[in-house]
Amino acid sequence: MSKAKLKVIPLGGLGEIGKNMMVMEYEDDIIVIDAGLMFPGEDMPGIDLIIPDISYLLEKRNNIRGIFITHGHEDHIGALPYILPQLNVPVYATKLTQGLISVRLKERKALASAQLKTLLPGEQVALGKFKVELFSVCHSIPDAVGLIIYTPAGVAVYSGDFKLDYTPVNGRATDFSRLAQFGMQGVLVLLSDSTYAELPGYTPSEKVVGETLDRIMAEAPGRVIVTTFSSLISRVQQVINAAAKYGRRVFIVGRSMTDTSRIAAELGYLNIPEGTLARIEELHDLPPDKVVFITTGSQGEPTSALVRMLSHDNRQLHIMRGDTVVISASPVPGNESLVNKTIDALFKRGAQVLYNTVAPVHVHGHGSQEELKLLLNLVKPKFFVPIHGEYRHLSFHARLAESVGIPKDNTFILEDGDILEITPDSCKVDGKASVGDVYVDGLSVGDIGSVVLHNRRMLARDGIVVLVIAVDKETGKLIGQPDIVSRGFVDTKESKEMLDQSCALVAETLDNGQRPVEWDFVNTKVKDILGKFYYEQTRRRPMILPVMVKV
Amino acid sequence: MSKAKLKVIPLGGLGEIGKNMMVMEYEDDIIVIDAGLMFPGEDMPGIDLIIPDISYLLEKRNNIRGIFITHGHEDHIGALPYILPQLNVPVYATKLTQGLISVRLKERKALASAQLKTLLPGEQVALGKFKVELFSVCHSIPDAVGLIIYTPAGVAVYSGDFKLDYTPVNGRATDFSRLAQFGMQGVLVLLSDSTYAELPGYTPSEKVVGETLDRIMAEAPGRVIVTTFSSLISRVQQVINAAAKYGRRVFIVGRSMTDTSRIAAELGYLNIPEGTLARIEELHDLPPDKVVFITTGSQGEPTSALVRMLSHDNRQLHIMRGDTVVISASPVPGNESLVNKTIDALFKRGAQVLYNTVAPVHVHGHGSQEELKLLLNLVKPKFFVPIHGEYRHLSFHARLAESVGIPKDNTFILEDGDILEITPDSCKVDGKASVGDVYVDGLSVGDIGSVVLHNRRMLARDGIVVLVIAVDKETGKLIGQPDIVSRGFVDTKESKEMLDQSCALVAETLDNGQRPVEWDFVNTKVKDILGKFYYEQTRRRPMILPVMVKV
Repeated sequence: MSKAKLKVIPLGGLGEIGKNMMVMEYEDDIIVIDAGLMFPGEDMPGIDLIIPDISYLLEKRNNIRGIFITHGHEDHIGALPYILPQLNVPVYATKLTQGLISVRLKERKALASAQLKTLLPGEQVALGKFKVELFSVCHSIPDAVGLIIYTPAGVAVYSGDFKLDYTPVNGRATDFSRLAQFGMQGVLVLLSDSTYAELPGYTPSEKVVGETLDRIMAEAPGRVIVTTFSSLISRVQQVINAAAKYGRRVFIVGRSMTDTSRIAAELGYLNIPEGTLARIEELHDLPPDKVVFITTGSQGEPTSALVRMLSHDNRQLHIMRGDTVVISASPVPGNESLVNKTIDALFKRGAQVLYNTVAPVHVHGHGSQEELKLLLNLVKPKFFVPIHGEYRHLSFHARLAESVGIPKDNTFILEDGDILEITPDSCKVDGKASVGDVYVDGLSVGDIGSVVLHNRRMLARDGIVVLVIAVDKETGKLIGQPDIVSRGFVDTKESKEMLDQSCALVAETLDNGQRPVEWDFVNTKVKDILGKFYYEQTRRRPMILPVMVKV
Repeated sequence: MSKAKLKVIPLGGLGEIGKNMMVMEYEDDIIVIDAGLMFPGEDMPGIDLIIPDISYLLEKRNNIRGIFITHGHEDHIGALPYILPQLNVPVYATKLTQGLISVRLKERKALASAQLKTLLPGEQVALGKFKVELFSVCHSIPDAVGLIIYTPAGVAVYSGDFKLDYTPVNGRATDFSRLAQFGMQGVLVLLSDSTYAELPGYTPSEKVVGETLDRIMAEAPGRVIVTTFSSLISRVQQVINAAAKYGRRVFIVGRSMTDTSRIAAELGYLNIPEGTLARIEELHDLPPDKVVFITTGSQGEPTSALVRMLSHDNRQLHIMRGDTVVISASPVPGNESLVNKTIDALFKRGAQVLYNTVAPVHVHGHGSQEELKLLLNLVKPKFFVPIHGEYRHLSFHARLAESVGIPKDNTFILEDGDILEITPDSCKVDGKASVGDVYVDGLSVGDIGSVVLHNRRMLARDGIVVLVIAVDKETGKLIGQPDIVSRGFVDTKESKEMLDQSCALVAETLDNGQRPVEWDFVNTKVKDILGKFYYEQTRRRPMILPVMVKV
């Protein structure tokens, strides 16, 4: 007879940062935690974004009781517009998170049919054999929560993204008392955020940034332009507070920053003192040292408001000598060069630029090693699963768990798709769910496969040569000379002779039309000979695309 | 009557890191300082490397008296194999630097005709109206120098890449006494390294790394694998010292590490105690805790020895549980993801991995703010030109100069190609030399232009659609249906219907062969219509390449 078994199945977020999605399954009941997207690396040209493969969920569609979202960041909510129409189940989250989800769903016309259920931290909801309770955590967005999940096998705690921060700007601090209570009663399994498990010590409080911003607003000789993520609402709050203190008026610039601030203010998560916000028409009446801009562009994104302020498109909003620009964010891995180019351009324009290398203008939202150990110590789980992070982060987190007394064999470093089966006294990986990356490119979701991506990478490296061969449809023999067109391979003028030679080589290989031309021969042998010729001549390997036209 | 004028013309290395080249010109005499290469960014697909445009030098070929190379790093010597055959002038450098130059020249078959002249630090050489003296500087490679250049207009000091380090591992410390002497006598212009002008304080001594390596060799339970740049010879020395101290045998793995170490040892810059080096055949007789590997791969390069050790290609050399891997280098900007992936793979293989985020296993070779200020204070130049660095680094360095009393108007932040004219009492930018990036791709130098690169980027983003139209060469009318072949655009099976529709659309636009087909019409109008159709259907913009075959 099988004992009560809780299954934990990560469909995203392990072995990589982003695209978070966790499945918890008990007999015929499933709850899903988070549904995030990931942005593609440089090795995935043309891809807009990546979402988790939900085929495991689609097969068990009728068992899914709901999706819980821990907070409103893209790597936790971004896949909802794509998967919710397929699953059609209720979404549970706190007020601000629901507000941000609504915006995303609306953009993709998926809001009308969505069932969004707003919960308060501390509130419980029973779904099948699960009961789920939200607890407040402190993160770089307000209204973030972790989950306490009651199951017949025992209690599971899911940390969500969290840090400690005893002096948070707005929103509540992480609710350690509630967790401590559970730790005393016994927790079966803890799943906890590993993003910063590499870093010793504590993550500094958001307050540190507040102090820097205060000094900047007091001392900057001209305008202050603060750029950050639009979802970093507590950062926006600190900018507004410091601006108001020194009588500076605040201009919120750019669509995503405007949208997010508006929702946050409407829902009570952003407190803007009367008379602080200004409309763009008021700009030319204000002296520079009474002006603050808040905008996106901290990643050097070409379409961001900051980068557009660097071009002279807009006469009023361009960067000028005497401006102080604060890059209040870290570059997302892979964006370093773009951010550096933006900083260089700002310096060239005569702005003073403050960024994390030179001033404490950003702290991140995840706990460092001491915070992670504190959580492990409070919750005292029997089993431990490090989540959110690349492999090295999970490894470090596992080591931290061992250092605070969790037996090594009770910690499980999972990969996406691993099915972890937990009973009150056992835990093991048993089976694998189908997982993977679903690419969103333009209008389509999931049609871009590895072949298309491989081709794009190959095209990028050495370009393409199209070989056009016209054959007589009666005799099958070559008509005239083969035709060669190339793009991205060589300078077609300078290398005309070499390209002509390659044309002659093809004609010769095809016996100059003496015998019928076979497609298989062209597609393998001719392609091969041409490839070798080009490599010898140029040390490049363009994609060779033969086309045979029968006329 | 025109006064004595020294011209300083950067042909590379300003506004970017790497590809250093500086020209000094006095009447009919020219000396060149450094001739480096740069590795391409992700936005330059298929390019192997980038060297400076030397058209300015080619025009004045007969005036060039020599090229001085400050040290043996790629960003200072790497362009020599490409430009030396064109200029055919003597190259002056210290012994180790010449050794490394010889290797590079030999690889490109440019050694036989080269005139390499070895100098000692302190030695002077007179060339036309210039007299040049080398002075020792401490950098992350031994035998590095800066230059003191006597000209009729005054003395110029060129720092080269340098840091302070009072406790260097091998090689000499930076020769501040000689510089102080000149500072007292009066220096017209200082050109100084700005690479780390962002960082406050002092750069730590190489000794810090030595202490970490010592502890690792003592405590590691199994084999130790240290990966670093092959040119970081002092690092290799420290690994050898620590290994020898604890009776570990050292295996040098990989071609570039083996070559560089061999030259350094031959020339007396690497001291390997008797019996320390081991041959690979000895590996299976040694217990793991008596084994050290030194190898490349610190940048996660797919062809490096470390990354090959991660695959199971080589049974003896693969990474195994219990290994300690030391990544003794920082990721070059842009390489972060590749390095992180390598670290993850090492953790997965059960290795312990030490890298700069978690342990002090690397220090860099450039001075931080306090060191730069010290040099400025000693040399006391009349004019100051920050060199080596992106725009923000140059800006910070200029600010440091101001803080130690060099008037703001006497500091010149140049761009590549700016011609700076200096007389004993004036300094100004007057004119611009032709500069730019010359791309090396495979066998060819300089044939890849912006069109080829633009095409590669476009191909990478959304792929290509080739439209083949056969027309009767007599009537000019369409024969049969147009043919469409795509790569990297959509999944050709799933999107067959859409591609067929686009074919029909083209046929329709061409009046289904009722009228003769004009090439101009195809190349503009048909291309345009097809582009719009694809964008509507997919929100992608593939390159559209029409080919017309006349038969």
